[in-house]
Amino acid sequence: MLTISKSVNLTIDYNNPEIIEEKNLIHLKSYVTGKWIEGNGKPLFLFNPVNGEKIAEYFDGGLNIKEIFDYGREVGGVNLRKMTFHERGRMLKALAQYLMSCKDELYPLSFQTGATKIDSWVDIEGGISTLFTYASKGRREIPDGKVWVEGNMEMLSKEGTFIGQHVCVPMMGAALHINAFNFPVWGMLEKLSPTLLAGMPAIVKPAPVSSHLAVRIVELINESGILPEGSVQLILGEPKDLLDYLTNQDVVTFTGSAATGQKLKSHPNIIKNSVRFNLEADSLNAAVLGPDITNEMEEFNLFVKEVVNEMTSKAGQKCTAIRRTIVPKNLLNDVTDAIKERLVKIKIGDPNNNETRMGSLGGKRYVDMLNEKIKQLKESMEVAYEGNSNFEENENAFVNPVLLKCDDPLNTSAPHKIEAFGPVSTIMPYDTIEDAIKTVNLGEGSLVASLYTTDSQIAEQFLLGSGAYHGRINIINKECAKESTGHGSPLPHMTHGGPGRAGGGEELGGIRSVLKYMQRVALQGHPTMLTKVSGQYLKGADYKIDKVHPFQKYFEELEIGETLISPRRTVTEADIVNFAGISGDFFYAHMDDIAAKESMFEKRVAHGYFVLSAAAGLFVHPAKGPVLANYGLENLRFIKPVYIGDSIQAYLTCKRKTYKEKRQHEDTPNGVVEWYVEVKNQESEIVAVYTILTLVERKND
Amino acid sequence: MLTISKSVNLTIDYNNPEIIEEKNLIHLKSYVTGKWIEGNGKPLFLFNPVNGEKIAEYFDGGLNIKEIFDYGREVGGVNLRKMTFHERGRMLKALAQYLMSCKDELYPLSFQTGATKIDSWVDIEGGISTLFTYASKGRREIPDGKVWVEGNMEMLSKEGTFIGQHVCVPMMGAALHINAFNFPVWGMLEKLSPTLLAGMPAIVKPAPVSSHLAVRIVELINESGILPEGSVQLILGEPKDLLDYLTNQDVVTFTGSAATGQKLKSHPNIIKNSVRFNLEADSLNAAVLGPDITNEMEEFNLFVKEVVNEMTSKAGQKCTAIRRTIVPKNLLNDVTDAIKERLVKIKIGDPNNNETRMGSLGGKRYVDMLNEKIKQLKESMEVAYEGNSNFEENENAFVNPVLLKCDDPLNTSAPHKIEAFGPVSTIMPYDTIEDAIKTVNLGEGSLVASLYTTDSQIAEQFLLGSGAYHGRINIINKECAKESTGHGSPLPHMTHGGPGRAGGGEELGGIRSVLKYMQRVALQGHPTMLTKVSGQYLKGADYKIDKVHPFQKYFEELEIGETLISPRRTVTEADIVNFAGISGDFFYAHMDDIAAKESMFEKRVAHGYFVLSAAAGLFVHPAKGPVLANYGLENLRFIKPVYIGDSIQAYLTCKRKTYKEKRQHEDTPNGVVEWYVEVKNQESEIVAVYTILTLVERKND
Repeated sequence: MLTISKSVNLTIDYNNPEIIEEKNLIHLKSYVTGKWIEGNGKPLFLFNPVNGEKIAEYFDGGLNIKEIFDYGREVGGVNLRKMTFHERGRMLKALAQYLMSCKDELYPLSFQTGATKIDSWVDIEGGISTLFTYASKGRREIPDGKVWVEGNMEMLSKEGTFIGQHVCVPMMGAALHINAFNFPVWGMLEKLSPTLLAGMPAIVKPAPVSSHLAVRIVELINESGILPEGSVQLILGEPKDLLDYLTNQDVVTFTGSAATGQKLKSHPNIIKNSVRFNLEADSLNAAVLGPDITNEMEEFNLFVKEVVNEMTSKAGQKCTAIRRTIVPKNLLNDVTDAIKERLVKIKIGDPNNNETRMGSLGGKRYVDMLNEKIKQLKESMEVAYEGNSNFEENENAFVNPVLLKCDDPLNTSAPHKIEAFGPVSTIMPYDTIEDAIKTVNLGEGSLVASLYTTDSQIAEQFLLGSGAYHGRINIINKECAKESTGHGSPLPHMTHGGPGRAGGGEELGGIRSVLKYMQRVALQGHPTMLTKVSGQYLKGADYKIDKVHPFQKYFEELEIGETLISPRRTVTEADIVNFAGISGDFFYAHMDDIAAKESMFEKRVAHGYFVLSAAAGLFVHPAKGPVLANYGLENLRFIKPVYIGDSIQAYLTCKRKTYKEKRQHEDTPNGVVEWYVEVKNQESEIVAVYTILTLVERKND
Repeated sequence: MLTISKSVNLTIDYNNPEIIEEKNLIHLKSYVTGKWIEGNGKPLFLFNPVNGEKIAEYFDGGLNIKEIFDYGREVGGVNLRKMTFHERGRMLKALAQYLMSCKDELYPLSFQTGATKIDSWVDIEGGISTLFTYASKGRREIPDGKVWVEGNMEMLSKEGTFIGQHVCVPMMGAALHINAFNFPVWGMLEKLSPTLLAGMPAIVKPAPVSSHLAVRIVELINESGILPEGSVQLILGEPKDLLDYLTNQDVVTFTGSAATGQKLKSHPNIIKNSVRFNLEADSLNAAVLGPDITNEMEEFNLFVKEVVNEMTSKAGQKCTAIRRTIVPKNLLNDVTDAIKERLVKIKIGDPNNNETRMGSLGGKRYVDMLNEKIKQLKESMEVAYEGNSNFEENENAFVNPVLLKCDDPLNTSAPHKIEAFGPVSTIMPYDTIEDAIKTVNLGEGSLVASLYTTDSQIAEQFLLGSGAYHGRINIINKECAKESTGHGSPLPHMTHGGPGRAGGGEELGGIRSVLKYMQRVALQGHPTMLTKVSGQYLKGADYKIDKVHPFQKYFEELEIGETLISPRRTVTEADIVNFAGISGDFFYAHMDDIAAKESMFEKRVAHGYFVLSAAAGLFVHPAKGPVLANYGLENLRFIKPVYIGDSIQAYLTCKRKTYKEKRQHEDTPNGVVEWYVEVKNQESEIVAVYTILTLVERKND
């Protein structure tokens, strides 16, 4: 340990003035109201669970919680709301880059929590990559601006003078994140990502056990200077009045045990103010070996490997770990033996040792809690494997993996109710897939379930019978196993959270979780007013017409609502014939007078793509100008057929503008301009409607 | 009253065997576990608030709540989940049509709750139209099938063998709807619509006061025979153990007072099982007259009219009513006078009288509760208007409208905290728009706010400063007022619910609220497996290739994943020249060798729409066949430029099929087939990707 311990202290000494080494003990401080603040009262300590050494000290008392919330709301919130979604996305990207450049110094701190190198990689680089994902998804999927124009416009009136458009705006309070001890970096960053992207300030309360890592992250955030003042505060310890100043504009998230989560969720202040509370609780997640799998199939080994991996990675201290291993009755012994064979080989010990496959629990008290739960589980179940290592009776927190066996899972409640938060799983048999589904559902809601099968009908049956009990379902076969990210890994793209026992919350899931920090507002009014307020052209709003062709205007010069009304063009028989010739599209409705008569059109109709192409011919300005390319098209509907002799005309309206940061390999700074297009016929009926996406050059940089 | 009373009894006598007239008293029963059940214990009564007459009797006790929930879950849920989303959508449409055909008999029952004809129209026809909206929006916006494929596929691996796709599946419990007394029909149907569409059974507990209307609706539902057994049950009275059997798969909604809602929400069983609880509580909604409005503008009168309308419609017993009337200080007296002038003219009385503009409260006890709140409000505020009618001291529940005035709203808490649930509003002045926003936000969260302004900058400032406090915001000016649906009307298209005081819930909002009754599952696995399970082709899944051209197959014959790999076509200079000629699109990047060299493409590039048209030429089968038309296109992206000499090839894959019911005016039964198209070049690089929508004939009907 000495080498690592030294290197940690070196890091802390020179780069980090807020953590002062004193008699080998780190003093941790809270970061609140723009300052590092030492608490008061009796000192509390962090211990290295690998050897019991004291690693840090902090003081629990003396924080003014009301002031901290007010600072978040009045400084952080105000600062963040001055930025647009994409500005905040770029901020997240810069922060991710900065933290990634500092990652090496975080590993030694992580080893001090009992985490192995792989555990630490998941925590540290998994956390930073979540920031990256939100930085890029946020800019790809959320329209830029200060309000998020969400979903489609709703027509609420006959004449179109009264419409609806949902928009989302940041909540004006602070988000309190009460984090778990097991993934101090990931847990912090996966919650900060959507919070900051939404435009809300955060107050992070890390679990005390691993809070030295959380403190270091907040120091790095401060060093980077990337976030505006007040965006992130950090509270050490367990202040008793933590929830007493919450308002209707605040949000609370909690990750940890179901019992604690439920207690916090029913806090009178949370109930009274309808404070949003997102709970993500440990659950009794299951992995099911499908009835189609034999012990000679690759899926058998993949299943066994994953169960062992989920039992031992992070020493089983994962809210997503496989607690219930559900297998066909005829394979119960085979699977049990195969798991045991692998468990025997797991090397338990100091994370600094390269051969170590499983580290320690988070601390000695977690060992006691775990043993108590194992004892309860043993009351109704046999032990299939109990490990063989004797850990000395010193202050370390190593434990053996334990595999329990439940022969009658449909009539035994313990394995579906009692969670042993460590390297523990219960294996249980089933007769039919229906029974397997019933068994899984006895967990009363979980974060994730895995099904190993090659049979899509079994997978479908599982989804329809058990889907409502899980936030995530992995369906694994040999075709995807190699690239699978694993049962236990929440990904920023996919929702994380589950019903019932798992707390009923939802995190991550890409931009879905950003909405957890925003209020959806159903805006109603005239389209011209809502266009101005939302920053997006809404059908029915007034046009602006200018003598300069919009394709001759730079990004900055274009205004939302600016419209080009094109010349008309009469569609002729020659157009249809020629278009068929050049496209090769001789579909009967265009070419065959007899078949067209019998068709839904009743006579020959122009190609839809001709209408699209001719409309472009009508509105495109041919000369070189700021419009660089048309790179996409959305929501095209051909509303009415265009016949020979019809005259068409295009209305091209600037719908939305999105600034793009300059990428290094690009010459021309630009932005995306979306254009709403209506093509009308001589009766002013709309024949086609769509939105095109163009890249338009910026002038001023 | 006699006429109406008779007609009601007639209706009930002959069409409705479950409500038996006996000594002029209707006996109400609960409809549970497939039967009409009379309760037991002491009888309870419903009174007509217009004249105090007893109108109905019911018994509170004796229902087996656990059995009712089990029946919903095991009979109703199982039946509903056998159907697809669109089948349930068609079921809602049929039910809406049936109820609409019976609407005339509901009005007399509604008059017996003190509601005027217009109040009753909002309740009855507003409720039925919500069913219609969900029937059609559900089928337009939710993909058909038993799982809802929600959002885009997520690529989770480098080689594409492991992907993610969110799907939603119905919760497997029952939805308990605890409804408010004021809109017994609308309140029931607006909650049933998304519940049934999601595939969840409902247990409706109407407010006792107006439960005879709710009972009649459930009778009509039963008479229609449209819903499968167990879909809807109705519980009368206030069973004490109503929440005691909830599981993690159930959902509870509550509409009513904040105090009761908060109490129910913190029920230990709800907390323990993380039962979803959607709370929609009365709130202190505001209407703000913008600082730009003068007393000579049309918006001044529109504002006054709406305040009076919201005070008096449904006698102000609306969770969305304008409780706070916020006006520029210089217009305080003018607005007050104008409101008074209109209030004086409001005719209060029996809903059977055609001249009646305002009916009664729901009952005598609501009068007492209202008077108590008015008394509290008067402690810190003046009375601006108190009405002039003397209602006899009999058992009716008529009250006068009351307008209070608060001169210092930023320093007076009562008008922002105390809700008088009746024809009561408080008028208050502001100096600046910032003060108006502060004043509005003192309500601590509301269902709706209205702003009367002609200035979009003021509207934007209001949205950014106060949006997070409301579920809905109306921005009204003279351009939209005529067609506006009004401050107090929740619409099925727009979300209804608000933060904080309003309960933090969300209802309606189109298909958004359907998700409240479903579990979102993050499915992960191989694209081929997830394609089979989700019923939608996901990129990377195996192709199926057939010798028969897919355009020659009927709707029923096409399989998801079925792919046509087209011949290739080499793009020539002649193609570009000819396409420019026929389209008229001579954009420099296609035509001007010099400008193209300077552009981002570096040489002349084929038109994007040429690529699209040529791809159609490659995959379209020209002969008459089951494909009727290509009516739309989605998500087109031009990924790479196509140059002279490049050879392109199209991959057309059947992505999703949606059955369409035959409309009367159509000859050909058909369905929508979506095709995923990739156009590749000679290097197998994708140059364009999109989805096209076609109508394809059905064979078998």
